[in-house]
Amino acid sequence: MRILVYSNLYNEQKQILKQELPEYTELIFKSDLSENELTDAVKSAEVLLGNPPADLLNGELPNLIFWQLDSAGFNQYEDVTLSIPVANMGDLFAVRCAETIVGGLISLCRGIHELVRLQDQKKWMGVQMRSGLQGLDDKKVMILGAGAIGLAVKKMLTGFGCQITLTARENRMADLHRFDDILAVLPETDVVINTLPGNANKYVSKVFIDAMKPGSIYGNIGRGNTTDEPALIHALESGKLGGAILDVTVVEPLPEDHKLWGLKNVILTQHTGGGGQDEENGKVSRFLINFRKLIENEPLNDLIDLKQGY
Amino acid sequence: MRILVYSNLYNEQKQILKQELPEYTELIFKSDLSENELTDAVKSAEVLLGNPPADLLNGELPNLIFWQLDSAGFNQYEDVTLSIPVANMGDLFAVRCAETIVGGLISLCRGIHELVRLQDQKKWMGVQMRSGLQGLDDKKVMILGAGAIGLAVKKMLTGFGCQITLTARENRMADLHRFDDILAVLPETDVVINTLPGNANKYVSKVFIDAMKPGSIYGNIGRGNTTDEPALIHALESGKLGGAILDVTVVEPLPEDHKLWGLKNVILTQHTGGGGQDEENGKVSRFLINFRKLIENEPLNDLIDLKQGY
Repeated sequence: MRILVYSNLYNEQKQILKQELPEYTELIFKSDLSENELTDAVKSAEVLLGNPPADLLNGELPNLIFWQLDSAGFNQYEDVTLSIPVANMGDLFAVRCAETIVGGLISLCRGIHELVRLQDQKKWMGVQMRSGLQGLDDKKVMILGAGAIGLAVKKMLTGFGCQITLTARENRMADLHRFDDILAVLPETDVVINTLPGNANKYVSKVFIDAMKPGSIYGNIGRGNTTDEPALIHALESGKLGGAILDVTVVEPLPEDHKLWGLKNVILTQHTGGGGQDEENGKVSRFLINFRKLIENEPLNDLIDLKQGY
Repeated sequence: MRILVYSNLYNEQKQILKQELPEYTELIFKSDLSENELTDAVKSAEVLLGNPPADLLNGELPNLIFWQLDSAGFNQYEDVTLSIPVANMGDLFAVRCAETIVGGLISLCRGIHELVRLQDQKKWMGVQMRSGLQGLDDKKVMILGAGAIGLAVKKMLTGFGCQITLTARENRMADLHRFDDILAVLPETDVVINTLPGNANKYVSKVFIDAMKPGSIYGNIGRGNTTDEPALIHALESGKLGGAILDVTVVEPLPEDHKLWGLKNVILTQHTGGGGQDEENGKVSRFLINFRKLIENEPLNDLIDLKQGY
């Protein structure tokens, strides 16, 4: 059985795969192939681990029986048509994503981004800064999306005494479901954390941003396209919003001439949310669990529908 | 009754004092006095709000009946001898201190300090950074001190899934009390957060730091003198420690040629812990509560013993 590993794995994780997979499997690593060989390898693969460019998957893939994505999101594959089981990494990244966006939020409130810049200038400005700093315990926070990331953010912020409102279109764990109800609560909301998947295109629209409380904070750990970015930038430049923590942007990497780089009330975490020292091991172990289930004909974990987007 | 307000208050808070205090009180603000007038005003004050230099308090103060500090710490007054009630600001700053040190910890784990520097350089390095980032949920954290700050840090970090050990010499809420027991647990501890008062001079000694787990993180939101700073700097430079968040240092403001400015695995929060937009109002309202209790002969809040240090 030919298994193509498109994921960029370290040698340690490659060794784990070699040891753990049955002898009848043939492991092919992207890193060992030229570009032409790679195209052929995708075509002939029976099992695929990782995220090739969507166009490599649009031809015929007659041998493929299972595809394990190595990400949580899969929005880039919404036009890929496959009739085989496809799984993503489920909530592997959820806690790390939540940590990053909550860390960014506290940094913004406590001025840590400014303090890092002052440190490089060897300037002691602590006393002057104190009265401008914000607390977390008095914050009303709205979390968009009640999935694994949203729930993890809620758990973390509860420890700070924040008052949380969870929103989702259908999930019953959410407090609010209708867009109008959400708009009505926004003027009283100090922080909005977006954890939405890519199919919620421009959910945080100009109308949404206009309804937000003056001076409030916006965080996005979902997908970049879920936000009307020009409207957000305008609100940040005009002072309508107090600041933002953006793990995702519409274009990544952010082009060098992009306005967001220069906004001092913005913390760009550069899609590091989800990252961690245990990330590669987590990917490999989740793949191995699903591979065993595949050959033993058990129900697979984290199956997704590419058309749904995320 | 002459009330000397040594605290630097904004006009808003001065007005609150004027409105709320009885008519028979005479309010004198430091900002309205020359240096000589100030010395006389301290000598003739009946009630004092704020933190004058210790040497102004070492002469005779025959009229003083109550002194309300406007800080939590009071270590600088350990040689001041007064037989009147003295109160500090209790836990007014505790939550804001805890927010700052926890925010710094998450920033260090999630690389936010590096991301801020990259943002200024307009460099997108997110993908390369991911595998170096740390999570919080797998961290064993030791909190030195079971006072208001220590308990607030514990509550916040519990929301991240950290495993917490609280230490204190006598407080029964603590898990560990003896220094030897603490040393024995340090090699298994990922993060140490110091919330100790100033009378715990060099508690975090070279012996303590040597016992810490390689790569672990140190945070200090207590007092600068509770740490053997040269030993700490050595451990940070040698790579023995993974990083530090220091709200306090032995000398504040930090001199321009101090080594700590240049350590990239250190976040200096410049004694901003405790600061917040509600800080001045909180000081004034706590003073007013104690003033009412004073004239109605009720037990005062947050009484302290200057000899104890903090």
